[in-house]
Amino acid sequence: MNITARLARFIADTRFDDLPAGVVHEAKRSFLDFLATALAGADHPAVGATLALIAHWGGTPEATVVGRHKRAPAPLAALANGLMAHVLDYDDTHMPSMLHAASVVVPAVAGAGEPRRIDGRSALLACALGYEVGVRIGNAITGSHARRGWHTTGTVGTLAAAVAAGKVVGLDAGGLARALALAATQASGLIAVFGTMGKSLNVGKAAMNGVLAADLARAGFTAPLDAVESERGFVRVFTDETSMEELTTELGVRWESARIGRKPYPCGLVIHPVIDGALEIRRMLHGQVSGIEHVAVRVNPYVLYLAGKAEPATGLESKFSVFHGAAVALLDGAADVPQFTDERVADPALVALRRHIQVTGDEAVRTDEAWLRAQCTDGRSIEHHVAHASGTIDNPMSDTELAAKLERAAATRLPSARVRRLLAAVSSLDGDSSLSGLLRLCA
Amino acid sequence: MNITARLARFIADTRFDDLPAGVVHEAKRSFLDFLATALAGADHPAVGATLALIAHWGGTPEATVVGRHKRAPAPLAALANGLMAHVLDYDDTHMPSMLHAASVVVPAVAGAGEPRRIDGRSALLACALGYEVGVRIGNAITGSHARRGWHTTGTVGTLAAAVAAGKVVGLDAGGLARALALAATQASGLIAVFGTMGKSLNVGKAAMNGVLAADLARAGFTAPLDAVESERGFVRVFTDETSMEELTTELGVRWESARIGRKPYPCGLVIHPVIDGALEIRRMLHGQVSGIEHVAVRVNPYVLYLAGKAEPATGLESKFSVFHGAAVALLDGAADVPQFTDERVADPALVALRRHIQVTGDEAVRTDEAWLRAQCTDGRSIEHHVAHASGTIDNPMSDTELAAKLERAAATRLPSARVRRLLAAVSSLDGDSSLSGLLRLCA
Repeated sequence: MNITARLARFIADTRFDDLPAGVVHEAKRSFLDFLATALAGADHPAVGATLALIAHWGGTPEATVVGRHKRAPAPLAALANGLMAHVLDYDDTHMPSMLHAASVVVPAVAGAGEPRRIDGRSALLACALGYEVGVRIGNAITGSHARRGWHTTGTVGTLAAAVAAGKVVGLDAGGLARALALAATQASGLIAVFGTMGKSLNVGKAAMNGVLAADLARAGFTAPLDAVESERGFVRVFTDETSMEELTTELGVRWESARIGRKPYPCGLVIHPVIDGALEIRRMLHGQVSGIEHVAVRVNPYVLYLAGKAEPATGLESKFSVFHGAAVALLDGAADVPQFTDERVADPALVALRRHIQVTGDEAVRTDEAWLRAQCTDGRSIEHHVAHASGTIDNPMSDTELAAKLERAAATRLPSARVRRLLAAVSSLDGDSSLSGLLRLCA
Repeated sequence: MNITARLARFIADTRFDDLPAGVVHEAKRSFLDFLATALAGADHPAVGATLALIAHWGGTPEATVVGRHKRAPAPLAALANGLMAHVLDYDDTHMPSMLHAASVVVPAVAGAGEPRRIDGRSALLACALGYEVGVRIGNAITGSHARRGWHTTGTVGTLAAAVAAGKVVGLDAGGLARALALAATQASGLIAVFGTMGKSLNVGKAAMNGVLAADLARAGFTAPLDAVESERGFVRVFTDETSMEELTTELGVRWESARIGRKPYPCGLVIHPVIDGALEIRRMLHGQVSGIEHVAVRVNPYVLYLAGKAEPATGLESKFSVFHGAAVALLDGAADVPQFTDERVADPALVALRRHIQVTGDEAVRTDEAWLRAQCTDGRSIEHHVAHASGTIDNPMSDTELAAKLERAAATRLPSARVRRLLAAVSSLDGDSSLSGLLRLCA
């Protein structure tokens, strides 16, 4: 059986009761994290601009736009929800593939599922399958794919969203194979737009295009049945080096999606170890950071590839500046949403400190690791090693921390009683929660 | 000035009166050809499936869906119109870049322009600029781009549609540069889906995504200003070999888009020389093709790369089978819409003849050229050389032939008086025709 067929068969055949308890728990954590990141991003100007267009186009109000008094046709709700979940770079990350899985999969499942009034278990199942297929395809092409200039969440995310939406709309294995092809032929998203609103467009479009792929497959659109692995198929076109065995080895036995991390800081995950380290150095200096002469940082070279912007000009750019991340953590003792705004980026004291951060790439350092050494004007030298950044799979956010992330994100937008109901609804998604009931709480 | 900036400045600055008369004339011919191919394709099941989804989503009825009693939001009308213009593989072809320019550009201009009630000159200007930028980007990446597995009309077409729509919505040079970036990061379309409905989805999505890119740029979406040529920009990501000088050399002086051909046969243009040759051999045999033992065909190897399907199973696949094209032309003495249907493909006599067509790739043969030799059971051997396929730029369809193509396509769909008004409206697009008036005639 070819690879596309095996993936499609896995998606078609897997039932909720087949999911290990740990996978269900992680799917609920991802749902919670999606809601937190979407609510935190719902006010961003990129979201406002997109929603103004969606309002102009109009259409059947069948699906919830998170955090807004607004409903829209399913693909457009998926566009808005995916975009707002990613715009702050606050969303979950599967480090090996660099896929932000929930930001594409949850909007696709919500868009396809709410009009069909699916129950919470069906939603969790579709999400879990979307994550698993997404991170496996990501692993099969990672490295070379990103080096070529592709934004994995835009590209691979389209396929993940398509199979998740395809599971929701009840496609059989053949239909899922066609949905994968119709997703592959829509997949896109360039790293070139990082630091601009275009980055979150990649993610919103992946969610939207995934819904469209599933809808078209259901409507009988023809497409090849081997588009993932064929000679001119997705993997071969989108990357130069492949690890095809990642796609199906131990599928349904080993859950690669259990390795998804969730972020405490709203910026690229590759900056997280440096922020952890900078916060620790500030603590070691008892907050007295004015005496820092310079900071030498050693990280994996990929950190500089993705987040090497030395002089970010906007909040969005600062999310991909390891220099900004280090400086703002040292100066503010925090790395939350206010630390990555247009205003904060321009602060003269911050700019001055940023220019004293020196970052070196070193292949011997993992991407979740960082070495920092701060040299002070009084001659002191302080070192700190971060073994595993917070938010990564070896140093994950706890359930309590995730709930607090949602509470913070929802604070200005939803009454606290509603937030508590929302937390309870996510927690009982594998019980008596319905997807539409949960989504109504976010409007 | 960088390349994106020069392209954007050219689009922003060029006025209708700057267009040479020949470019205006070709733009009208492209518009006519678009209408013919869209009307011919409007009944295809792929269009029906898409329109059913569009009807479900609903929305502001601001833009015409060609050939249907239907209006839709601009991006969705562009999706449907692009899809129907391409689904029969009957649409214009710029051979050097393999871009089907009108199928992405006209739907984008119509979608963006009809709600704004632009006049015919503005529509022609936006089309001409979209074509020119599209074929130049296509030329810069051609060859290597398609060999990698990309469908140029899906990928490059998104950028062409974006600048055409961007001109319509009044973007300045900076806005057009952002629209190019927002198009580049949405661009996609795989050759892997050729022979299925996915192929026309590539084209409809390019038109739709182009409209979206222009709308988002107008709404203030941020994006890089050098996305065509930057280190991880469109050209570098989407191809392995580039000819960057094609992008801007003699821009506005030499119009590369004047080299767009229009097809007499609804199938891949690369098959056209073989069909011409097969029709001529049938004439030389006075229609007595039953005595043909086998036919040896020599073509450019690219013909077999794109259209080498030996045993097509569906009408859509047959459009990319040089074997089918030769056989059906010999047997039917025609290569019109009925020759490329699911039914015709399965005819036993045709299948038998198809298996006696032998096709060899030869780098010394141009893509618009073919050598044919038919060996008959009575010992006769008949040869024919096609120097330039009909529909290519060295053997173009005349204005009269194009008008007849529209009349044939519209015959079952519009009253003949309406078709005459439509022909007159296209002819006076540079005079007193309005875009919306013309489009109303197509509904």
